[in-house]
Amino acid sequence: MSLRVVFLGTAAGVPTLKRSLPAILVQRDGEQLMFDCGEGVQRQMLMAGASLNRITGVFVTHMHGDHVMGLPGLLQSMALLGRKKKLEVYGPPKIRDFLRGIKETVQFVLTFPIDVHEIERAGVVCQENEYTVQAVRSKHVIPSFAYAYVEKPRPGRFYPEKAKALGLPEGPLWSELQRGRWVKLPNGHVIEPEEVMGSPRKGRKIVYTGDTRPFKRLEKFATNADLLIHDSTLGDELAERAEKYGHSTVDQAAMSAKKARVKQLILTHISQRYEDTSTWLKQARKIFKNTAMAEDFMQVEIPLLE
Amino acid sequence: MSLRVVFLGTAAGVPTLKRSLPAILVQRDGEQLMFDCGEGVQRQMLMAGASLNRITGVFVTHMHGDHVMGLPGLLQSMALLGRKKKLEVYGPPKIRDFLRGIKETVQFVLTFPIDVHEIERAGVVCQENEYTVQAVRSKHVIPSFAYAYVEKPRPGRFYPEKAKALGLPEGPLWSELQRGRWVKLPNGHVIEPEEVMGSPRKGRKIVYTGDTRPFKRLEKFATNADLLIHDSTLGDELAERAEKYGHSTVDQAAMSAKKARVKQLILTHISQRYEDTSTWLKQARKIFKNTAMAEDFMQVEIPLLE
Repeated sequence: MSLRVVFLGTAAGVPTLKRSLPAILVQRDGEQLMFDCGEGVQRQMLMAGASLNRITGVFVTHMHGDHVMGLPGLLQSMALLGRKKKLEVYGPPKIRDFLRGIKETVQFVLTFPIDVHEIERAGVVCQENEYTVQAVRSKHVIPSFAYAYVEKPRPGRFYPEKAKALGLPEGPLWSELQRGRWVKLPNGHVIEPEEVMGSPRKGRKIVYTGDTRPFKRLEKFATNADLLIHDSTLGDELAERAEKYGHSTVDQAAMSAKKARVKQLILTHISQRYEDTSTWLKQARKIFKNTAMAEDFMQVEIPLLE
Repeated sequence: MSLRVVFLGTAAGVPTLKRSLPAILVQRDGEQLMFDCGEGVQRQMLMAGASLNRITGVFVTHMHGDHVMGLPGLLQSMALLGRKKKLEVYGPPKIRDFLRGIKETVQFVLTFPIDVHEIERAGVVCQENEYTVQAVRSKHVIPSFAYAYVEKPRPGRFYPEKAKALGLPEGPLWSELQRGRWVKLPNGHVIEPEEVMGSPRKGRKIVYTGDTRPFKRLEKFATNADLLIHDSTLGDELAERAEKYGHSTVDQAAMSAKKARVKQLILTHISQRYEDTSTWLKQARKIFKNTAMAEDFMQVEIPLLE
């Protein structure tokens, strides 16, 4: 099962020639989750070669225009392209009123149902067979959530030689064991799955902070994440401004990554002040080595854990 | 006084790799009027090298998302860039509710006043010193307006040799005549402006239809326009579909240009079905010779009339 993160927009507030407004795709086999939905997201998807109608859920961190103004156009284009499948939209309170207000004033016909989930408190907001999406309150100037995509554990590795040694030749009973069920041999002996399989393998975890000051809860929320995507709107020289407007500096983002012991950090939501971010990256890497700077259309594969 | 039209978005409904959603700039010296404001318009302006805060008025043809969803983000970015100057926004009824609804649900702070003008009927909607913008009801599936940018006549050409022949040497009195005032010579003789100047010179006229079926009123509204920018969403083979969805075909647009005796026609609002529009252009030119196909970032200079 492949897992890929595609950065569609990495700007803060005002777009630039190189950076569109915030939007991140998490692509699983045949399915896409979108985190934030800034203006221009449709064309960014076209340019990234991503299909509009494979999106099953959109998760909005907060109701600032640069994070949500791409949503109405996205819905409209999905309808114009004939979508029938339901779309799930998650976000803070007011996201329902936002969409309702637009539907009442800007005329467009939807060809598919939308379930809008207004998130009231931290926890699992989306429960699927193979993964959950969890939310936690972040620390911005308006109500805002960080999200985590968390895969459920996969069964451990199956060892055929162990099964054979226990007198069970290749056949349908192997599948039973792989599914976690015990099997009985013709001689009456019972084999438990643990006897022929390794321990369950951890799923992968991606955390996206949205706009936020550094906040204590993130440490636990992002613990051991394979990837942390963190607000780093400003450089350290503008730390006061970052605090005033509810953002993080590069150093603060790197420090959060370190505390949460994540595997990889990607800095995003880059102010239009900065064209060259190379000195930032150096600075961040002093604090947390495995750091990268987000660029539009950057793709990051998250490998399966063994 | 230069006058330039910049096409920022030439798509219909759904954007494509090459075409962003509808938006057109009319650039006069130091001032810009925007007609329609599709999603992504800010980045298109950046790419066209146009300044966000030189926009003095935004004219929306109708309340379909692809024509108006760029407006909230544009306002927000203007504010983030520190705009103080008032902005005039013109559009059909509901445009005020649209902006109000967004302001109540998507939090953004405006640093400048906005005057929203809901257009109720045809006529002059914007009256400036040197030009007016006029509106007329077009024929779409929802209330929709076509707009005309119409320059007021400029004074006629001044003929120095005629002034000298009447006994008036170069000096401040020449300016008086050029401003349309009579002057008195030392000998008591009065010179009227008409004696030393040609007849008033016509201003320039640009008409933009927005989304529309061919409609009779356009003939008069666009008469003798220097430039007609016309909906031509579909080819003739989809004429029924065009009628159903309130659009024009290429042929219909060319026919309208011919009837209105405009100088130049530019076809825009091109369906995402069509990647190559060259056959269309040939077809249109059979009906109206001076036709061009709009492309994103195309710029058209409208010369001063002599």
